[in-house]
Amino acid sequence: MRAIDSVRTADDLQALVERFFRATFSTDNPVITEAVKRMLAAGGKRLRPRITLLAAEACGGKAIEHLHLAAYMELIHVATLIHDDVVDNAATRRGVNATAVDYGNRVSVLAGDYLFAWIFKNVTLNYPHPIPNVLSATLADICDGEVLQLQALGNLDLPLDTYVEIARKKTASLFAASAQCGATMGGGNATEVAALRDFGECFGIAFQMKDDLLDMTADERSLGKPAGNDLTERKTTIPLIAALASGGGRFRAQVRRFYDTAANDAIPAIVDGIEREGGLAATRAQIGRFVERAKSALEPIAARAAKRELIRLTEALQS
Amino acid sequence: MRAIDSVRTADDLQALVERFFRATFSTDNPVITEAVKRMLAAGGKRLRPRITLLAAEACGGKAIEHLHLAAYMELIHVATLIHDDVVDNAATRRGVNATAVDYGNRVSVLAGDYLFAWIFKNVTLNYPHPIPNVLSATLADICDGEVLQLQALGNLDLPLDTYVEIARKKTASLFAASAQCGATMGGGNATEVAALRDFGECFGIAFQMKDDLLDMTADERSLGKPAGNDLTERKTTIPLIAALASGGGRFRAQVRRFYDTAANDAIPAIVDGIEREGGLAATRAQIGRFVERAKSALEPIAARAAKRELIRLTEALQS
Repeated sequence: MRAIDSVRTADDLQALVERFFRATFSTDNPVITEAVKRMLAAGGKRLRPRITLLAAEACGGKAIEHLHLAAYMELIHVATLIHDDVVDNAATRRGVNATAVDYGNRVSVLAGDYLFAWIFKNVTLNYPHPIPNVLSATLADICDGEVLQLQALGNLDLPLDTYVEIARKKTASLFAASAQCGATMGGGNATEVAALRDFGECFGIAFQMKDDLLDMTADERSLGKPAGNDLTERKTTIPLIAALASGGGRFRAQVRRFYDTAANDAIPAIVDGIEREGGLAATRAQIGRFVERAKSALEPIAARAAKRELIRLTEALQS
Repeated sequence: MRAIDSVRTADDLQALVERFFRATFSTDNPVITEAVKRMLAAGGKRLRPRITLLAAEACGGKAIEHLHLAAYMELIHVATLIHDDVVDNAATRRGVNATAVDYGNRVSVLAGDYLFAWIFKNVTLNYPHPIPNVLSATLADICDGEVLQLQALGNLDLPLDTYVEIARKKTASLFAASAQCGATMGGGNATEVAALRDFGECFGIAFQMKDDLLDMTADERSLGKPAGNDLTERKTTIPLIAALASGGGRFRAQVRRFYDTAANDAIPAIVDGIEREGGLAATRAQIGRFVERAKSALEPIAARAAKRELIRLTEALQS
């Protein structure tokens, strides 16, 4: 048993993915290759590819044989980030030389499109049904979720169920696909593949909730972006939803005033209000629920080291 | 023979495609469905789907059975136009309410991404190899060609070969894929499929050259955009390349000055210069060459009505 239980730890897998990207990533277009390499060099925890590789090993496969598949998961994520940056550039580089902004936007839109196309070109050539279908359906879900999120901006009455549905589409769908495809290619049977997809989806929802929480509790240096950024963008995150649900009219009026005036110096007071109204505690409780669901989803999976690593990654969302 | 030779004319096929879009087009996201429907309602000659259907019929298939496939070809084109508009919005709506511009850009980027993903999701589910691979490789070519075109902006020394390579990627690849996929699904053998792909590529290059020519010779109303727009954007089009190749240093200096000063009132003089230096005549000659190559490519195809329609569409590029 020990001999085939050859899983690396999740940290080893991160290093494996990094080396793979540095050694092999290249497309036919040098400008786009460079843009993508810059994004990859900017770092990241590589959670999606790690989950793909762990899912493959959890079903008896070997991580080393599925590095390309794992890399495509990260690259789908990178392509969506490149397109997110188009919008961010438009918002934050205002006033700067307009031609540079336009040229940047053009290349960013095209680089993201090219990367999606390049991934699908490789996946349709090298992977059996349903892998190409899962990946394209996942990208559709991500975009669908992002549009739903845009429509929910500034909505103080967003139901928790709708929040979870948006998180499921824009964030959890790619974790679900990463686990599902890893399990499929790792030789998992139908039960194992469904269990790992279910695991990925619950993990991804908890991951998004943790991300919402960190935006309010971590400092700018560890986030890599200003704290309270979600509030600046009027995103209806779960700490805010929970605080509004339990809070009184005064807190609601305070948030409404902040949205109306866009006064960023009011953010610390809003965060204090969210904590006072129980929004952070309620978010931690919800994360706990989805962490438990993710772990339960793994019940049909055999007790290999990879399963233990998946559980460890999941429990880390509660820290 | 006459009984199976049941092809509609290309104009009938355009109406068929239009009715199909109006009756059936819908995605799971209402905002994106609406954005795409607006683009479809803005018109278009539907050349790509018409070529798909004609290629299917040229190989003995029935157009009516391949409307979905044909529609995907137009929708890939629409998705690339939606992303082109992101850039155009950024350039032309400057000074307008910034939030509206940002919101517009966000939805445009996401709508284009979603449409690509939605097409691939359907194609990977419903079409055999190599159709999904051809379509994703085509999208990669289109983006690659557009990046190459961006890099060539303002380049007065662009070789004609490089121009043709850019046109092949950004424009002709989708015509080639439209013809190839129509032929494949219409039951064409390997020779017929290769012949129709070759036809589509030559047609597409001639189409791009004609587009360049019209930008200088047609009026704003028939173009749906300002005449001389390519010059404003510093695109190195074939009439300009040909005029620079045969023209003297004075003409080159005039174009360089125009690029340096961005004085749009100089455009009529530049167009006059291009005509005087033989750029329009040389472009017409190059269109004629690719029209002949497109027609030659059809030689292995049986003499059905669909083949005659493809030839008619091709010869129309010379008018």
